[in-house]
Amino acid sequence: MPHASTALLTDMYELTMIEGALRSGTAGRRSVFEVFSRRLPGGRRYGVVAGTARVLDAVEAFRFGPEEIDYLAAAGVVGEETLDYLREYRFGGSITGYGEGECYFPGSPILTVEGSFADAVVLETVILSILNHDSAVAAAASRMTVAAHRRPCLEMGARRTHEGAAVAAARAAVVGGFVGTSVLEGGRSYGIRPIGTAAHSFTLVHDDEEAAFAAQVATMGPDTTLLVDTYDVPRGVERAVAAARAAGGELGAVRLDSGDLVAQAFTVRQQLDALGATSTKITVTSDLDEYAIAALGAAPVDSYGVGTRLVTGSGHPTAELVYKLVAREDAAGRMEEVAKASASKSSVGGLKVAGRVLDGAGRAAEELVVACTQWEQGLAELERAGARPLQVPLVRDGEIVEEHRGPGALEAARERHRTSRAELPYAAWRLSEGEPGIPTRMLDVDRADDPDYVV
Amino acid sequence: MPHASTALLTDMYELTMIEGALRSGTAGRRSVFEVFSRRLPGGRRYGVVAGTARVLDAVEAFRFGPEEIDYLAAAGVVGEETLDYLREYRFGGSITGYGEGECYFPGSPILTVEGSFADAVVLETVILSILNHDSAVAAAASRMTVAAHRRPCLEMGARRTHEGAAVAAARAAVVGGFVGTSVLEGGRSYGIRPIGTAAHSFTLVHDDEEAAFAAQVATMGPDTTLLVDTYDVPRGVERAVAAARAAGGELGAVRLDSGDLVAQAFTVRQQLDALGATSTKITVTSDLDEYAIAALGAAPVDSYGVGTRLVTGSGHPTAELVYKLVAREDAAGRMEEVAKASASKSSVGGLKVAGRVLDGAGRAAEELVVACTQWEQGLAELERAGARPLQVPLVRDGEIVEEHRGPGALEAARERHRTSRAELPYAAWRLSEGEPGIPTRMLDVDRADDPDYVV
Repeated sequence: MPHASTALLTDMYELTMIEGALRSGTAGRRSVFEVFSRRLPGGRRYGVVAGTARVLDAVEAFRFGPEEIDYLAAAGVVGEETLDYLREYRFGGSITGYGEGECYFPGSPILTVEGSFADAVVLETVILSILNHDSAVAAAASRMTVAAHRRPCLEMGARRTHEGAAVAAARAAVVGGFVGTSVLEGGRSYGIRPIGTAAHSFTLVHDDEEAAFAAQVATMGPDTTLLVDTYDVPRGVERAVAAARAAGGELGAVRLDSGDLVAQAFTVRQQLDALGATSTKITVTSDLDEYAIAALGAAPVDSYGVGTRLVTGSGHPTAELVYKLVAREDAAGRMEEVAKASASKSSVGGLKVAGRVLDGAGRAAEELVVACTQWEQGLAELERAGARPLQVPLVRDGEIVEEHRGPGALEAARERHRTSRAELPYAAWRLSEGEPGIPTRMLDVDRADDPDYVV
Repeated sequence: MPHASTALLTDMYELTMIEGALRSGTAGRRSVFEVFSRRLPGGRRYGVVAGTARVLDAVEAFRFGPEEIDYLAAAGVVGEETLDYLREYRFGGSITGYGEGECYFPGSPILTVEGSFADAVVLETVILSILNHDSAVAAAASRMTVAAHRRPCLEMGARRTHEGAAVAAARAAVVGGFVGTSVLEGGRSYGIRPIGTAAHSFTLVHDDEEAAFAAQVATMGPDTTLLVDTYDVPRGVERAVAAARAAGGELGAVRLDSGDLVAQAFTVRQQLDALGATSTKITVTSDLDEYAIAALGAAPVDSYGVGTRLVTGSGHPTAELVYKLVAREDAAGRMEEVAKASASKSSVGGLKVAGRVLDGAGRAAEELVVACTQWEQGLAELERAGARPLQVPLVRDGEIVEEHRGPGALEAARERHRTSRAELPYAAWRLSEGEPGIPTRMLDVDRADDPDYVV
């Protein structure tokens, strides 16, 4: 897919900062920016990294072409010297991050951007937009697939979110374990299986339910899914089974989209079985979230279609990730830790190297985050602690590591999430509000005499 | 701005419904679809129509070109006959709707799409995506500008939402009364004033705060806004004022982005005044929503920068709008009201014509919604009731009414909202949960012997 420029999906202050830094001579200082969250929204037990492949696409397309430059000049956003810098801009630094789909916790350095100050600061907005959105949806999706046990979950929320966000949400849902999407652009852009049959309007445009069901079976075959609640559910079920049989087959599934889904699932299952349609499945789709899915756990339901609550992050539509300068070159050319000190938003300075420590039973026990100056220092600490390193190279000196996007990357992210989640202690899978599933231990190798501290 | 095709921003079932309808002969039945909400999310007092201009752009770009057709064929979404229909698709019907920026209530018919069943059903997903997102953000924005009284509100949420949604959110915020946006694409696409100066990283990349402030003042002038809370606020304020004066001017503003904003606003104001910087303003930007803005009402704050809570609809990221078939041609060629009957999601059938009834003091008293067969019938009822008609033609027989998009449309929507909101009774401006600001009265002219009923 060709990408239009992503360069103006950027807050103005990124560019005025470049202008100021060009003036003061700090624009070229080597810098380390880090994406992390101070907390997990809503007392969640874990977060899910999603959007990494989209970040790589956005970084590649982050170029200020003539149209972007013309706008910036006309609007007087920055002056000529800065426009010259932007005209030539192409990210030449390195990006390291948690593999897409990996679980994360407060303080996990899920993305690290290294480059000159100007090169790296300007990516802040678009990187956060992508990761905050996609990770929020993936976290909700993951909770829903936990609640669904192995029953398939299908994404159907396009209409309840921005049209572009809908496509990204379909992708993020797959990272979290969903297996299909209603939105066709999700199929085209990311190879996700498109799903869907008919809405109530299809039944209503026909003279009666029988005519609608016959038309759908004629085009989609008897193994389609018929929506049976436009008028009266028991009659709808009867007609649905009859329509499939009239076409020489057994009905694939019925869909319930209103009413008390638990009670209806039982009565519809009974009715289907009494009609001999024992292979006909039941799919439910009305206002589901992870709690409703859990409540349907004992009901004879075969799949879940989730809309609003999935694409809006089930109450938490943004992952609260931030992008902070944690280290930069000083006037003497040495790298120095930096961190905002004031008030409620303090953060820990320094490059961070992260690993997951497992206990004897192979369960995750701790997120070990080492603040250091060099990657090698941190990796040595992880090895000492027996921790699995969590960061992988995504961009090396401006060159994108292709395996993390493109065909296969989404399936790999889904699998990585499945494995990472399975490794968490049972308590991390709980839907209730609580503490993160494992604690984050922050170790600062440059402060050897400080006690370790936990964020 | 050129538009790529929007045709695949569509749920698969819209296309399989077309396929079934082509088979059953109902695809060409004249149909009326209506966008409305059953309730206002979160006990809000009013909704705000936003996204109308974007809907018009999306309808224009809703064409199945070779790339879209190739995908649908390869994925086996629909068969050859339906692909032939889609290849030629161009919306040829009519769309009527509330003017963008208008307030709405439960049952308000904010958009009406008339055309053949197939022509109109296929627009469902993308129309809902746009209106649900943009109206949710505009509703939040409107509550915030109510809470801010006349102090300016600035949109800064790009990083907390999907990168494309961010641009639409900036636009919707302006409909709700905001006056600037951080995201540059909002400036380019919609002519919104871009705003922003610097983040904490800018201060941190310099050797000290003085150097950072001097660099910013050198490029942006002394009337810039300096972020004073990277280290210590009182010292930051002192340095900020000094930096501007060293450049021969008085500082434009200081920005506070953490801590207790109410308390800080007072102490910073005192400090600024004591320094003689009485013209220097204070802008605040940390985790604001309409309640925090209201709480700052008595504090000496000059403007608000709002991020997360604005772009996520302040707790309600989607407007819960639905797109329902309300009337269609029957086999004999007569228009017939239709409505889903079952369970919890019943709706009122028939074309709806809506008007706002004012009381003697010129305040809105009632939303009058007339269910009828012809526009003329409904308009006559509105006239009888002395109601101001709320719907305007947006697309006539496939031709877009240009005044509702393009230059001027956004400013007109903002002004329409201001006027519409000002007309509501005081109770409608309250931030607390409650009943809609005015009741909706549903009148069915085809059921003259029914008592009027209120939804």
